[in-house]
Amino acid sequence: MLFRSLRAAVSATASIAVVAGAMAVTAPSPAKADEGMWTFDNFPIQTVNDKYGTRIDQAWLDRVRNAAVRLQGCSASFVSDEGLILTNWHCVVGCVQDLSSPENDYVKNGWMTATREEERRCPGQTAEVLTEIVDVTDRVLAVGEGLEGAAFNAARSAEINRIQQEACAGDPKLNCQVISFYRGGRYALYKFRKYDDVRLVFAPEQQAAFFGGDPDNFNFPRYALDAGFLRAYENGQPVSTPNHLTWNPEAPKEGDVTFVVGNPGSTSRLLTMSQLERLRDQQLPVTLIQASELRGRLLEYSLTGDEAKRLAFDPIFGLENSFKVYYGQQGALTDPDFMAMKREQEQELRARVAADPALVQRIGDPWADLERVQATAMDLYLPFRQLEQSAGGGSQLYQYARAIVRAAKSSDMSEARRAQLAASLANEVPIATDIEELRLRYWLSKTREYLTVDNPDVQRLLGRESPEALAERLIEGTKLADPAFRAQALSMTPEQLAEADPLLAFVLANDDAAKAIGDRWAAEVSAPTARAAEKVAEARFAVYGTNLYPDATFSLRLSYGQVQGWTHRGVTVPPFTYMGGLYERATGSEPFDLAPRFAAAEARINKDVVYDFVSTNDIIGGNSGSPVVNADGEVIGAAFDGNIHSLGGAFGYDGELNRTVSVSTAAITEALRAVYPQPRLLEELGVD
Amino acid sequence: MLFRSLRAAVSATASIAVVAGAMAVTAPSPAKADEGMWTFDNFPIQTVNDKYGTRIDQAWLDRVRNAAVRLQGCSASFVSDEGLILTNWHCVVGCVQDLSSPENDYVKNGWMTATREEERRCPGQTAEVLTEIVDVTDRVLAVGEGLEGAAFNAARSAEINRIQQEACAGDPKLNCQVISFYRGGRYALYKFRKYDDVRLVFAPEQQAAFFGGDPDNFNFPRYALDAGFLRAYENGQPVSTPNHLTWNPEAPKEGDVTFVVGNPGSTSRLLTMSQLERLRDQQLPVTLIQASELRGRLLEYSLTGDEAKRLAFDPIFGLENSFKVYYGQQGALTDPDFMAMKREQEQELRARVAADPALVQRIGDPWADLERVQATAMDLYLPFRQLEQSAGGGSQLYQYARAIVRAAKSSDMSEARRAQLAASLANEVPIATDIEELRLRYWLSKTREYLTVDNPDVQRLLGRESPEALAERLIEGTKLADPAFRAQALSMTPEQLAEADPLLAFVLANDDAAKAIGDRWAAEVSAPTARAAEKVAEARFAVYGTNLYPDATFSLRLSYGQVQGWTHRGVTVPPFTYMGGLYERATGSEPFDLAPRFAAAEARINKDVVYDFVSTNDIIGGNSGSPVVNADGEVIGAAFDGNIHSLGGAFGYDGELNRTVSVSTAAITEALRAVYPQPRLLEELGVD
Repeated sequence: MLFRSLRAAVSATASIAVVAGAMAVTAPSPAKADEGMWTFDNFPIQTVNDKYGTRIDQAWLDRVRNAAVRLQGCSASFVSDEGLILTNWHCVVGCVQDLSSPENDYVKNGWMTATREEERRCPGQTAEVLTEIVDVTDRVLAVGEGLEGAAFNAARSAEINRIQQEACAGDPKLNCQVISFYRGGRYALYKFRKYDDVRLVFAPEQQAAFFGGDPDNFNFPRYALDAGFLRAYENGQPVSTPNHLTWNPEAPKEGDVTFVVGNPGSTSRLLTMSQLERLRDQQLPVTLIQASELRGRLLEYSLTGDEAKRLAFDPIFGLENSFKVYYGQQGALTDPDFMAMKREQEQELRARVAADPALVQRIGDPWADLERVQATAMDLYLPFRQLEQSAGGGSQLYQYARAIVRAAKSSDMSEARRAQLAASLANEVPIATDIEELRLRYWLSKTREYLTVDNPDVQRLLGRESPEALAERLIEGTKLADPAFRAQALSMTPEQLAEADPLLAFVLANDDAAKAIGDRWAAEVSAPTARAAEKVAEARFAVYGTNLYPDATFSLRLSYGQVQGWTHRGVTVPPFTYMGGLYERATGSEPFDLAPRFAAAEARINKDVVYDFVSTNDIIGGNSGSPVVNADGEVIGAAFDGNIHSLGGAFGYDGELNRTVSVSTAAITEALRAVYPQPRLLEELGVD
Repeated sequence: MLFRSLRAAVSATASIAVVAGAMAVTAPSPAKADEGMWTFDNFPIQTVNDKYGTRIDQAWLDRVRNAAVRLQGCSASFVSDEGLILTNWHCVVGCVQDLSSPENDYVKNGWMTATREEERRCPGQTAEVLTEIVDVTDRVLAVGEGLEGAAFNAARSAEINRIQQEACAGDPKLNCQVISFYRGGRYALYKFRKYDDVRLVFAPEQQAAFFGGDPDNFNFPRYALDAGFLRAYENGQPVSTPNHLTWNPEAPKEGDVTFVVGNPGSTSRLLTMSQLERLRDQQLPVTLIQASELRGRLLEYSLTGDEAKRLAFDPIFGLENSFKVYYGQQGALTDPDFMAMKREQEQELRARVAADPALVQRIGDPWADLERVQATAMDLYLPFRQLEQSAGGGSQLYQYARAIVRAAKSSDMSEARRAQLAASLANEVPIATDIEELRLRYWLSKTREYLTVDNPDVQRLLGRESPEALAERLIEGTKLADPAFRAQALSMTPEQLAEADPLLAFVLANDDAAKAIGDRWAAEVSAPTARAAEKVAEARFAVYGTNLYPDATFSLRLSYGQVQGWTHRGVTVPPFTYMGGLYERATGSEPFDLAPRFAAAEARINKDVVYDFVSTNDIIGGNSGSPVVNADGEVIGAAFDGNIHSLGGAFGYDGELNRTVSVSTAAITEALRAVYPQPRLLEELGVD
């Protein structure tokens, strides 16, 4: 699933948190095939029109952009004039789980509403529409000049904050974000209209949406109704959204042109060899190994009872998804051909830079700089990961505690920031105590294992307790599951926090060390990496011109392609599945059992309707829920996955093999008609 | 812990199952420092006498060799004239667990005997003493001439079987084994006197023997009484063992010479670059990732109750030990300096070969051959691993089923082999049903994940069931936990087996595919690897002469060294710990809680007695339990571990950092006197 896993414990490996693409590599020359996650201000209109005979123009781009919606970790689009939002089921399942209880398991049974009044708010969910892009490269680059390390970071963040605050002027309906492109080669201010009352309208049962589960994830043929609907509200009323996409309930044909509009989270196609090698030798292996242990723990826990199974569903889902993504990435980085190609491209660029003395004079040797940074990163990564980046092992209560402790220690937190934090702490999110404890003991025991028993930070963390006993004491003793207590705690001094709650006391006692390693990482790894990467970007612009797309940064992008299967090792995979195929693939056993409503609807359903389809669009995690749009700008599907070949593609795109997997509007329409009769929604979508 | 983990699910990665050594590399020229696991017929007597002023001679070697004992996966020695055997606690803990029950947990409480009558037989345990070594290189090499693949394998195994059968002549008291050395450069017949009635005499409590648990494993300073005693019986009477080692209850001094006599299991110091790279890119990562998931599953299971904790102890212990070993190995293979050194050495050898046309004529280019084999191994490894090598995920019942099914299908199994199998099936070993199910569902789900849902072998394995449901049905339905049923089943036809038991039926239905991939691996990977490795060995002999030690092959070796600490990154670790240090390191929380008897004995114990010590001996997994012998041939300790630096050393030995960790006879004596008063044993050991 192509979402940015916000809930999974391993999500914190920021630079590689999301993925798609495959074994071939971004050409250093202008992108070929259907490669590229293009920004809206640099879309290759002419190339596309020439290749596909389309008539894309600026008006088309504006129309599509205005209908695009950014969710946390996902993409979406308005599909009616009353704020109705199409996205993936897996982008709303967190909300579905939050609205569920042991008595009402909407993940299992689906969430269906008969009236607007039944639409319920998703805790913490926002929806954002991009309204303006302003280039701020000069301002951002100027302020870091001549600075290094922590000073460089501080100056940069201060300037970025200034730009954001000037643009949004404290308006809570806006979100202003300075986003980096080309690894710091460009900076742009993205201004979003923000909606923070987002309600759940429709979600199918897990077994319909996620048929085939983890085994089928990132595979195709696929039979998944991975779609869900939200609605944006303001002042208790649905938001008026005239700029929505028109719902086209007809499936595309093979070869039809397709556009995917969304927010790819992160790619690493511009990383240098030394960066890729450190990922391969250290960060990815440790991430995979630790994620596997957590996976095993959660899987066994989920077998202890029905309620455990219900509670563990979402954590396991997120974790297995991340695991597959990282595993695919590691596959690319341990593929000798892939790495040889990457090496060759780097050598070519470096040779061309070396042949241009003025350029060398300007940028120096950023590749050598990055190599030096990797040695530092190798030394700092494990403590940084264990004490700061992945601290708490994904425990929600730990994250609350850390946010509260840091707010209490911070003398210069802005009122706006504090209000934002208060709002997020006020969200009523159910806490699964068993899983909180499991995550904490997992994290504590891995921290002891990777940093060793005799490490002073480990000794301070554990004291004389075992990871198991400490996790139990902290989670059973904390009051942080209560939003009222969180609100109280937010106004306490550090001394009061230490008295008030064992988990707060624990985090407080260990936070200086965590903060210190975080600061070192920022100053000794992030800052010099940013500086050097900007110089590499400058070299690329100088050598190859500006007809390039930037690495993904969870900002709005447009990719083009066509409906097309693929052939691998002599096996051809056609581009479509049909709804009837679901019944053939079903075995009756998890995760290949039919959703009861689908089983009941077998006689009613039109089995010839296209279910899922693949296209050559270049997308990645964060694109989940992206509308698939035809040449007329109508929505014909929702992208939800990549095929298995796309997994290594954080580092490159291969037009022969990489495919986007989408659920068709045709299938969603058929399901709303024959499986979950939802005449209200069909009418709103303008279908019959 | 340096045992060959026979019980752990991941142990099947045969070529790298065990370890010690570190970041520097076996010199291709004659071994320097204290490097080397020497065979008794090629021990560098003169080198040692010159360096350490000892007076080792053939008689000394014979004496020590005759006292050495080989256990399954471990080493040991006779230490009295009545068959008393010293080894490690962790080498007998499997037996301790087998003799335990929910009511009598001897793992937790220790196994103490007041009389001979209380000594109880360890199910399946044997003890073997090496009596003769005969070089059979010419016979073995001759028979494979001109053959390839399966034919080569078949001819080789037939000849090896012939040699073994001729030598042992069906005598059940003997074990004759043809062992390969120098990766097939030499073959020798090892003749053992075998004892198969081995009884448990003494084992301390887990918390005394394994103080510090997994966190302290492979670390030093260490405070572990990792010692246990067995006794060999024959005809109901203790075996007479006049050739035993004399027990010296005095601890050695820093700088004292030490010899370690035992059976190092496997090293990979002679592997070529392409072989190391495949281990690094495929085999070790998959092994680590899968082991981590199993670890997480077992850890969570162990928290579900006291009995679960008791049952899971031994599986978790074995698994965590293997995990640490593999993790250390992978650390070496991803260390750029280490790999650069290995590459340099290979290049030197290849250059010297290339300069000798006659040699090239004779051996061809075995490095290129091995490179080609790696490509095949890359393709075959995952199905080979999942369907054959690690099939069953470590389930004991699955292993019974497979052995029985293969016997039923095999028309040409010898009577001797069938009798051996019957004897092993007759062993009364307690079966932990929950863990059996856990292992099976883990294996089934990983097999589906790694081979994919649409793989025909996976479809045959699972049918329409989920891994969880299938594992439950098979384990709850099988009668194979009952030795009487196993005996019955051994005489059934395949058709009868399929009727008699669901697990037998399952294995039978899937065994052709498992066997087929096993045969392919043998013919397309093992056979050409053996051929090429023999040629590399020939090249090494030709270029560097015969003053080399061979890779470890779980055959009797002698290593020399001295008691010495080490210095790493400016920190010096002294060579000794003292019994008093245990009380300082104890926190009261697992795994740093004191064994109750040690807590009670604090006032009585002599805290100045040396507890554990390190020496420069070059050892590896399989050496666990090895006697540490002084220049006079007296036993002064039992080796049980390597330090953390030794973990990468499957591939090389670094005299600066690699250390053997042993428990002193001084500490064992003190414990038998002050903690577990065992006057009977002290008397037998000749101590006051």
